[in-house]
Amino acid sequence: MVGYAFMGAAHSQAWRTAPRFFDLPLTPRLRVVAGRDAAAVAAAAERLGWESSTPSWRDLLTRDDVDLVDVCTPGDTHAEIAVAALAAGKHVLCEKPLANTVAEAEAMAAAASAAAERGVWASVGFTYRRVPAVQLARRLVEAGRVGQVRHVRAQYLQDWVADPQVPLSWRLDRAKAGSGALGDIGAHVVDLAQFVTGERLTGVNGILETFVRERPLPASFSGLSGAAGTGTGPVTVDDAAVFLGRLSGGGLATFEATRFAWGRKNALRLEVNGSAGSVAFDLEDMNVLHFFDAAEDPQTAGFRRIQVTEPVHPYGGHWWPPGHGLGYEHAFSHQVVDLLGDIAAGRQPEPSFADGLAVQRVLDAVERSAGAQGAWVDLP
Amino acid sequence: MVGYAFMGAAHSQAWRTAPRFFDLPLTPRLRVVAGRDAAAVAAAAERLGWESSTPSWRDLLTRDDVDLVDVCTPGDTHAEIAVAALAAGKHVLCEKPLANTVAEAEAMAAAASAAAERGVWASVGFTYRRVPAVQLARRLVEAGRVGQVRHVRAQYLQDWVADPQVPLSWRLDRAKAGSGALGDIGAHVVDLAQFVTGERLTGVNGILETFVRERPLPASFSGLSGAAGTGTGPVTVDDAAVFLGRLSGGGLATFEATRFAWGRKNALRLEVNGSAGSVAFDLEDMNVLHFFDAAEDPQTAGFRRIQVTEPVHPYGGHWWPPGHGLGYEHAFSHQVVDLLGDIAAGRQPEPSFADGLAVQRVLDAVERSAGAQGAWVDLP
Amino acid sequence: MVGYAFMGAAHSQAWRTAPRFFDLPLTPRLRVVAGRDAAAVAAAAERLGWESSTPSWRDLLTRDDVDLVDVCTPGDTHAEIAVAALAAGKHVLCEKPLANTVAEAEAMAAAASAAAERGVWASVGFTYRRVPAVQLARRLVEAGRVGQVRHVRAQYLQDWVADPQVPLSWRLDRAKAGSGALGDIGAHVVDLAQFVTGERLTGVNGILETFVRERPLPASFSGLSGAAGTGTGPVTVDDAAVFLGRLSGGGLATFEATRFAWGRKNALRLEVNGSAGSVAFDLEDMNVLHFFDAAEDPQTAGFRRIQVTEPVHPYGGHWWPPGHGLGYEHAFSHQVVDLLGDIAAGRQPEPSFADGLAVQRVLDAVERSAGAQGAWVDLP
Amino acid sequence: MVGYAFMGAAHSQAWRTAPRFFDLPLTPRLRVVAGRDAAAVAAAAERLGWESSTPSWRDLLTRDDVDLVDVCTPGDTHAEIAVAALAAGKHVLCEKPLANTVAEAEAMAAAASAAAERGVWASVGFTYRRVPAVQLARRLVEAGRVGQVRHVRAQYLQDWVADPQVPLSWRLDRAKAGSGALGDIGAHVVDLAQFVTGERLTGVNGILETFVRERPLPASFSGLSGAAGTGTGPVTVDDAAVFLGRLSGGGLATFEATRFAWGRKNALRLEVNGSAGSVAFDLEDMNVLHFFDAAEDPQTAGFRRIQVTEPVHPYGGHWWPPGHGLGYEHAFSHQVVDLLGDIAAGRQPEPSFADGLAVQRVLDAVERSAGAQGAWVDLP
Repeated sequence: MVGYAFMGAAHSQAWRTAPRFFDLPLTPRLRVVAGRDAAAVAAAAERLGWESSTPSWRDLLTRDDVDLVDVCTPGDTHAEIAVAALAAGKHVLCEKPLANTVAEAEAMAAAASAAAERGVWASVGFTYRRVPAVQLARRLVEAGRVGQVRHVRAQYLQDWVADPQVPLSWRLDRAKAGSGALGDIGAHVVDLAQFVTGERLTGVNGILETFVRERPLPASFSGLSGAAGTGTGPVTVDDAAVFLGRLSGGGLATFEATRFAWGRKNALRLEVNGSAGSVAFDLEDMNVLHFFDAAEDPQTAGFRRIQVTEPVHPYGGHWWPPGHGLGYEHAFSHQVVDLLGDIAAGRQPEPSFADGLAVQRVLDAVERSAGAQGAWVDLP
Repeated sequence: MVGYAFMGAAHSQAWRTAPRFFDLPLTPRLRVVAGRDAAAVAAAAERLGWESSTPSWRDLLTRDDVDLVDVCTPGDTHAEIAVAALAAGKHVLCEKPLANTVAEAEAMAAAASAAAERGVWASVGFTYRRVPAVQLARRLVEAGRVGQVRHVRAQYLQDWVADPQVPLSWRLDRAKAGSGALGDIGAHVVDLAQFVTGERLTGVNGILETFVRERPLPASFSGLSGAAGTGTGPVTVDDAAVFLGRLSGGGLATFEATRFAWGRKNALRLEVNGSAGSVAFDLEDMNVLHFFDAAEDPQTAGFRRIQVTEPVHPYGGHWWPPGHGLGYEHAFSHQVVDLLGDIAAGRQPEPSFADGLAVQRVLDAVERSAGAQGAWVDLP
Repeated sequence: MVGYAFMGAAHSQAWRTAPRFFDLPLTPRLRVVAGRDAAAVAAAAERLGWESSTPSWRDLLTRDDVDLVDVCTPGDTHAEIAVAALAAGKHVLCEKPLANTVAEAEAMAAAASAAAERGVWASVGFTYRRVPAVQLARRLVEAGRVGQVRHVRAQYLQDWVADPQVPLSWRLDRAKAGSGALGDIGAHVVDLAQFVTGERLTGVNGILETFVRERPLPASFSGLSGAAGTGTGPVTVDDAAVFLGRLSGGGLATFEATRFAWGRKNALRLEVNGSAGSVAFDLEDMNVLHFFDAAEDPQTAGFRRIQVTEPVHPYGGHWWPPGHGLGYEHAFSHQVVDLLGDIAAGRQPEPSFADGLAVQRVLDAVERSAGAQGAWVDLP
Repeated sequence: MVGYAFMGAAHSQAWRTAPRFFDLPLTPRLRVVAGRDAAAVAAAAERLGWESSTPSWRDLLTRDDVDLVDVCTPGDTHAEIAVAALAAGKHVLCEKPLANTVAEAEAMAAAASAAAERGVWASVGFTYRRVPAVQLARRLVEAGRVGQVRHVRAQYLQDWVADPQVPLSWRLDRAKAGSGALGDIGAHVVDLAQFVTGERLTGVNGILETFVRERPLPASFSGLSGAAGTGTGPVTVDDAAVFLGRLSGGGLATFEATRFAWGRKNALRLEVNGSAGSVAFDLEDMNVLHFFDAAEDPQTAGFRRIQVTEPVHPYGGHWWPPGHGLGYEHAFSHQVVDLLGDIAAGRQPEPSFADGLAVQRVLDAVERSAGAQGAWVDLP
């Protein structure tokens, strides 16, 4: 694994936990974690349960006992690491967004495609696909219970920088993060919209905004691109993104990603309205899917609040009894389960780097639209 | 009153009821209702409690005992009736949208402005402003509890034509209705967004869509523009509208109006996120306002579910004890209360025809944007 | 009508409004309202829309133009007025609770039974039965969609005297009100539990409590039983009642009625769990019924949030389009509709005085149990 | 650890996970798991991450490398194992309910008390105390934000045996489980009611019911007490329990525990209404606490939906960013954190065996009341 911050902790927990609850065809061993600061990464290895650590991610590529490289670093380093790892014959799980630019993502998708021919697989970590309620939404769409998609309504609302006194960090730095709310959380809802509907966006237009353009510098902050004064530094990414889209099936989509929605802590919401019904999901109530079946007798029709914790549900029966909810991290365990299952079976894991590239193209199109006063941008 | 269908019934109930619960400076008398079909309007007068009826709305203009004309007809007749009534010295309450075109709305606003100089007042019926929870949202914004507005998230979701077998009606006919979801329900959320924030939209871009373009003709249907076959006729308005906007204070707004959201019966939702807090409203739970105060201690901060039924609340103490909810029609009674209060005081009622024109301009800009592949359209 | 306070206003609104929205077989005329204070009742008649007023309710009994007497006074006067009115050949609608004692209620039920033989009908105003969602719950139970009843969970939670500075009023005076939370709001949930399940309680045990035993006297307060000091007076009724019950079908019921649940303004909640499903209702969201169907595929099973505003729903199609909610007062209009329909058809309106007596017996049994340290009390 | 079924899996996950996210003063080592079936327990050890296994729990008592015994077996074995382990100088964590009888619980509490003098500690696993939202409720009560407790409203609703075709299992067998819904889930709400209020129940009365008295025997079922026919066997525990209680501070409490509430999967609900406010919790939305502050300005007062995921919240800042919810199992990790903290500090962990005994006495009192037709039973 490369990187050991928030995402590294979530991935480590998944690698440790998945084999305890699922019968896996392959058994993960947490061999080595890489990070630039040798002392820090050694401490992280101890805390997160890795057998060893190294200050150089390149060490992972030459180790025989490493079969898979899990990339949990900021987006600016994804392309270099993932391409090298694939070239070295390692399977790759890469955190989202796939890259900070479309060019990088294209290179990565090409590398993944070449590697696949050698039986080396790559997948991108749009983990929210693995929330059972999201999987159930996909199942219902696939089974025709939603019908032809008319509307997607997708929001990812947070508030962690709504206070202008929140200091700068790498997520607010374009050089590191590529973009702000758009790439960090907007990427998730774009992927989920495409995943749940099984369709692609064919075009978008949108607006980006940075509400607070200068923020205090943290004492230890060193990653800022460009010089900064002693007190504050510039925010170089978007605080919020709003955009519209067309789906390949003709439906309309609205998207919103923001870090300025006071009181909304992690409100990833996705609603799909089709010709036969609707599904609605909110990550703040993540064990629940709401489903409206238009075929139901009008007298008793209504959104059903489905607790997606039954044995018949996706990933069901492996954790706790019905009604005993899962948390944020479980989606990462499910990612491990699915990924190892696919690798063992010799089939392409989903989402592929091509899926990640598709999302990257949407993000790029939104940025180009925003730069052209919201003009429409077609997607390939 | 002119017109006696859905809106006519709601207005009649309000004229009858408001004086029973509020001390009004003027006492409404339900003198006469006008409608083209003499027998039908006579029956409606009896049912709705009007003293008399007439097949010609022009009769109202010459009656000395008529002080106010309440226009509840489809949008294509608003301009003619309202302008004539104002010219005849009658106060006018006109249902929304103000008109079917900007040109008509401009003429109406000009007529209203001229009439105002003579102490004759005009107001447009954006009734949802009078829902207590919406008024409370406005109060909180005005009092600075929300701060500088960052986001408006406005949706009006219905499903009454999601079934393609729903037959044609005047609301699906451009000649009568002007537009579809955009003007019928989108107009409401545009007005509410501007009302609650106290700001104006400075530009928009958007998409319109008609998902079902041919529908069965009802047996008795006669209002369709253009010839129609025996079986089906064309839908000439939008089924759904999605658009983005900028607020005068720099905030971002997303709008969605649709009649194709299965399971959402009358889901008018408005959320405003500002620098100091957030308010959220859903008409499907209309006695409640959700409010997040960013100044609150993080340990106990959370959206408050305010039941807007206390005596201290807008229109509070006039109906029932706390917790005893109001319904859809009560907003119309509040409209009567406010309108008569303003007329008695000799001041401009709100929303004025100028406010109605502002909404009409937004709707027109959305249509122009939709016609230009979603290009940005500035608003004056 | 006798009485013109909160309940008188609600009843008047219903008498005025019902014929505007429903085709009634009889047309209500608001002839005369009675109240002890001649000036006050005259003003109320004007405000509430009654043709005349009188300081003596006995006047109503001798007027030929009065066919029905609507009793909206405190409970201590119900028996005398209702029995006299029935004897005078007037139909009677009497507010709940039917009486302040079982003996009074028995006398009333006997009088009603005798009157019924003469085609003179009596009904008691358990108005919440007329909320569409409650009617739908009853329909679903009747249709077997809930199955054999296992549990009733009934609560009526308010907070209007949770503040000990709230002054005394007639509702806190045993001589006037008979009991406190038990008879005022507990009566409603007892009736609803029996109505929705179609069963009777066969026994109960419970506890009553008065948390605040002395309260400030209001300046104008005169109705207090027993002497009171200048500053405060005794609360002579229960503040809260909790009790258990057995249903005739073998199910278990829990009840709670309190005026001390801070933040719960008017939370009448009823949930029924049966062998085939569950229904749940909360008056704070009164246009909604939640329904769980145990026969549903587990993959999509969940409580359905039914907006009870469709034309197929009870009282549907008479008011506004789907999703346009009704308020507290609409149940009173439905009561008028049902009552006049039954009188015109010459059939016993429900709930009858016998139903009211059944509730009274439950309340009495709870009081006796509470007086015997919660011992079980069988019901006939 | 003794036992490796549902609870054993949850405890193992906690022992493995807690040290990854919290700085612990002691480092847990998963030395050995015991179970009667040698092959099965060996497999469980492998799956759950234990270093070794044994068919005899007594082996744990003689191993020097075992400092703490975690008892996850059915209730009939708790007393023997726990008392022996404490006598052997091992700290004990024992699943709830503490025992199947008061006599056993008393013996355990006595053993714990004796052990405590030697610095050997015992705690009972009322794990729901460790849900952050429950801890926050306790904090608010302790801080006086709820005031004098007037009402506790506690329910634990499940539906897993509502279908009469669900076969027998040890949880339906009195000899193994002691009681049914009462001891399994009712015990939780009794403990939480006492924990959150900081008060004890001083008396109760209640009813128990077994709705389905015969059930199919599973093919492999062997634990049933008494002989059983080939097809079905008797259910010897309660399916549901309802009871009332008095709190030591004078408040009223209602309790309900049932496995027959169709659609309620794991609805542990606790609401406390006090003189200064209210708190409400529902395990089906476990990351949220609702709080009403009676001191709030009535204009903006309402239940706050607090997402208990902030760094300032109980156990906050150790897992994921705000809004990223925890699941069922995290409470078990928090139990490990608290228990090891207390052991390291040499202080009595909570809940103690004395707390567990207090719960057991309540359960016993409910059973005695139910056996005496709901008569009141005082608690010491």
